[in-house]
Amino acid sequence: MESKMKPLNSNMKWEDFKLNSDGMLPVIVQDIENNQVLMMAYMNKEAYEKTIETGTMTYYSRSRQELWIKGLTSGHYQYVKEMYLDCDVDTMLVKVEQVGAACHTGKRSCFFRDVLKKEEI
Amino acid sequence: MESKMKPLNSNMKWEDFKLNSDGMLPVIVQDIENNQVLMMAYMNKEAYEKTIETGTMTYYSRSRQELWIKGLTSGHYQYVKEMYLDCDVDTMLVKVEQVGAACHTGKRSCFFRDVLKKEEI
Repeated sequence: MESKMKPLNSNMKWEDFKLNSDGMLPVIVQDIENNQVLMMAYMNKEAYEKTIETGTMTYYSRSRQELWIKGLTSGHYQYVKEMYLDCDVDTMLVKVEQVGAACHTGKRSCFFRDVLKKEEI
Repeated sequence: MESKMKPLNSNMKWEDFKLNSDGMLPVIVQDIENNQVLMMAYMNKEAYEKTIETGTMTYYSRSRQELWIKGLTSGHYQYVKEMYLDCDVDTMLVKVEQVGAACHTGKRSCFFRDVLKKEEI
């Protein structure tokens, strides 16, 4: 796989987290370079442990119902740089080095749909 | 309430969004000043419509099971500046002007728990 993969040393175990109704942890992914929010995805226990083991973002794909090593097919890996939990230990924030685009549409960030009409801001 | 409240003009209705298992929309909140991620919370239909109506972030509190106008008791209002949906229309990202602290602990951001041991980065 990738030469940049390396194990991380975590302070927290999966059992420390408060999970959502689906037994998963929502994960916000932010670009370490400029703090752009790139995407949100979900981890299960296997995905979290794989992420720690490899230093490379791994999720659980709810649509495909399988482990999803981000970048494995696209090459658009996300290398973990910083990793935080929130006050309620129910949401994770990870700053990553993003290779290529985070979004499957080819856009750098998944958050490209503007909800507000511009003239109103 | 707040003199800075003003209605927004939205491109999207609640019915346009894809909701999670609990019938809610996860919302990532980012500081417009420096792009720091401040918190994540959830909206139901009433919270979304109230947010658009007032320009002030309003959530559904899952713990208290009620509408939660952020800042109403603390004064720590969040004024909407930019609002995006992701490619899957199942997650919202809002850039806000944050008054005071976003976190109930008094910290600016809720994401203050470091998951990784520092020497490993």
